[in-house]
Amino acid sequence: METLGLAGPSNAAESIARAAKTAFEASQLIPPEERVRALHEICKELEAAKEDVLMANRRDLEAAQAEVDAGHMSASLLKRLDLTKGDKWDSMLQGVKDVANLPDPTGIVTYASELDDDLELYRVSCPIGVLLVIFEARPEVVINIASLAIKSGNAAILKGGKESNETTRLLSKAIQNALSRTSIPSTYIQAIQTRAEVSALLQLDQYIDLVIPRGSNSLVRSIQNSTRIPVMGHADGLCSVYLDASADLEKAVRVVLDSKTDYPAACNAAETLVVHESLLSTIWPAVAKALLAADVQLLCDPPTLSALSSFSHALANLSTHVHPAPPDAYSTEHLSLTLSVRATSSLADAMRFINAHSSHHTDCIVTEDSAAAAAFCRGVDSAGTFVNASTRFADGFRYGFGTEVGISTGRIHARGPVGLEGLVTYKYMLKSGGAQGHVVGEFGPGEGKKRYKHRQIEAHSVPFLA
Amino acid sequence: METLGLAGPSNAAESIARAAKTAFEASQLIPPEERVRALHEICKELEAAKEDVLMANRRDLEAAQAEVDAGHMSASLLKRLDLTKGDKWDSMLQGVKDVANLPDPTGIVTYASELDDDLELYRVSCPIGVLLVIFEARPEVVINIASLAIKSGNAAILKGGKESNETTRLLSKAIQNALSRTSIPSTYIQAIQTRAEVSALLQLDQYIDLVIPRGSNSLVRSIQNSTRIPVMGHADGLCSVYLDASADLEKAVRVVLDSKTDYPAACNAAETLVVHESLLSTIWPAVAKALLAADVQLLCDPPTLSALSSFSHALANLSTHVHPAPPDAYSTEHLSLTLSVRATSSLADAMRFINAHSSHHTDCIVTEDSAAAAAFCRGVDSAGTFVNASTRFADGFRYGFGTEVGISTGRIHARGPVGLEGLVTYKYMLKSGGAQGHVVGEFGPGEGKKRYKHRQIEAHSVPFLA
Repeated sequence: METLGLAGPSNAAESIARAAKTAFEASQLIPPEERVRALHEICKELEAAKEDVLMANRRDLEAAQAEVDAGHMSASLLKRLDLTKGDKWDSMLQGVKDVANLPDPTGIVTYASELDDDLELYRVSCPIGVLLVIFEARPEVVINIASLAIKSGNAAILKGGKESNETTRLLSKAIQNALSRTSIPSTYIQAIQTRAEVSALLQLDQYIDLVIPRGSNSLVRSIQNSTRIPVMGHADGLCSVYLDASADLEKAVRVVLDSKTDYPAACNAAETLVVHESLLSTIWPAVAKALLAADVQLLCDPPTLSALSSFSHALANLSTHVHPAPPDAYSTEHLSLTLSVRATSSLADAMRFINAHSSHHTDCIVTEDSAAAAAFCRGVDSAGTFVNASTRFADGFRYGFGTEVGISTGRIHARGPVGLEGLVTYKYMLKSGGAQGHVVGEFGPGEGKKRYKHRQIEAHSVPFLA
Repeated sequence: METLGLAGPSNAAESIARAAKTAFEASQLIPPEERVRALHEICKELEAAKEDVLMANRRDLEAAQAEVDAGHMSASLLKRLDLTKGDKWDSMLQGVKDVANLPDPTGIVTYASELDDDLELYRVSCPIGVLLVIFEARPEVVINIASLAIKSGNAAILKGGKESNETTRLLSKAIQNALSRTSIPSTYIQAIQTRAEVSALLQLDQYIDLVIPRGSNSLVRSIQNSTRIPVMGHADGLCSVYLDASADLEKAVRVVLDSKTDYPAACNAAETLVVHESLLSTIWPAVAKALLAADVQLLCDPPTLSALSSFSHALANLSTHVHPAPPDAYSTEHLSLTLSVRATSSLADAMRFINAHSSHHTDCIVTEDSAAAAAFCRGVDSAGTFVNASTRFADGFRYGFGTEVGISTGRIHARGPVGLEGLVTYKYMLKSGGAQGHVVGEFGPGEGKKRYKHRQIEAHSVPFLA
């Protein structure tokens, strides 16, 4: 940071950032159809470059395999690098076409008012500007994010994980080749490869308008610590399911099991189960039985632990899979088949506990009591509050957004699953059609002064932009 | 910042922040009517405390007068401190009643979709959480911001200028007394008095959700440099008026004069005039004449300067009020009767110049050409783009918001004049009414799997919260 006397941004980063801002500003008069055409050009270019890209991907994979063999990289990270597997390539291309087909998120009027005769105000959605997107491992994110940026009218600078540098370099070259056949400047989408460039770019708030990190909590926090630029973080999810006193047994079993086991590595998987004490010898053993049968490890507080011991005859895996909860159990994102469990004496206590321990991502209540459901939905301070539905529904595609920028763990600007809407802001356009223009000096409380009319206008687009 | 090993937050600040978060969470089930009642209680309490508050205000004023006499404070700052003047007290109270009467900004559904039979998703507006609001001088801002926070369901910690400490202490005592007669916790609104407390609070992102600084650019930047918490800045305005080749003379004179002289100290006053070169001997001298008659100082580039010299016979004040523009003229917020002037050869150049030099607050084009107007509105990257209307219209009251949090100079979350809407975010509520609850494992592309329905629901509020 400037004020702390750290080194200033490098010239290279500054020219990347300036080029992005210039490209953004130069592109504002380009019609939306051209942005759609650019997306189809990217598909064509990718088809043509497929062999080269997959060859580069194989080089990344070989280098990664060496790292895995040396114990420096996890096998799951290596798997995420692989573009050659299954239908990954085709679904990457299909994703670009899907984004092209989504409605234009810009130019939409969300407030319109006639302030006076012939003086019309429109609040209209528009791109944010230059995005700096930082993500890990999966190289197809370059294409995914570039499509979203182009569709929403934002320029973007992209930084992938260093493990996928060879692949992302060719993918971004394909994007730039495609853009060069359109009226969108080819510096509209740029890729960078080093952390030093990221550090330098984070200082350039005169050029960069939003930073979007997708990764661990520590990645997001370290970026928030290093920049004045607004950050839309996509970090961990520590989601809970609460079994209310009035929970239905079948719903409890189904919702807990799906929330935990459908895809344990996802941020919307449940990590903590909170059980009302009245269920300790009824629903809780049934839920535990299903979890244990699914190979889930349970970290239990004393009440939930001792409740199970009397059912030891009926529960497989009890001795190997049920353990006392360590002190940090309720603040841990397991991302695996492990679930922290805690008893509670009341809905109010459950809500306090969840507000204190969850990451405010998605939390669920299982209940037949509509008053309890309403209280939970209002009182739990999370991006998603669910009733009798798996936390795994927290997802842009399932919500119906057609695509997903990510799941924002912040609460400003965009919260929870973020669609294209999260990549736009708005501006106010005010037009006087009066014979003399409009000035505020004519308005006021005094005699002979005009009053504001504030008559609502029904409009979905700005008439004078058409 | 933690990572740089600076001192951690003080315990005092931590207990203030924790109390605010606890108050926020505890208040989420309080109905909106109680928040409105709290605002009326604040009015009553202020009426009762009027004499004490004004006495404290006089003590602040006396201390400030000594600072002014010693040359350490400006007379205009002193003026802003004064609560005793004119109808300031009454309009402060009226402001609270106005906020009480505004529609509730929370609980509004902005997206609703049936994901499956009996599985309904609602995106609904809700408070952000704990606000830390930092402002300067004017003590009535305490009441103003507290009203907005209470109305929108946010807890707030307020820090005013140290010059008004005596007044703000009593104003916040009145707020807390009033809250103690409601079910809203009295720690919902807290005032702090020192910069050290602010520094400590800026580290506490586990408790504080949004920082709102209202003041200079340097205040806003220094706060952005010192925190991970999102910042909604309210800083300078460097607004421009561009006289297009097709400008109408009368509109040009009226709009420029009002933009510059209606209230030069405001952030929405114009600081820069950009003149198309085809107007240099026609409209520009007429505009200059009106500005000079209004005692405006003109800082001109060579073309606009030499254009005036041939009209010296017709222009009063030419020798005292027209000067060559110094190098920093076009990046200076004058906040006084001074205007920087520059000629341009084209609309495209004018837009590039404005995008490079304006603070992206509000910029205006004077033109009779609808294509130029549309290009300017889309191509100028500012919160307000105006056609033939004074930049001074950029204001929450004039826009019809009923009240104003401030004018945001950021572009994320809220941009331009911010009403109550700027103090809310949203959350997603998902409710299964199905007999077995809902789990994602049942959905998928395969045979026997369910497909998402994504049927739009028409709803303005969440039915299961009522």
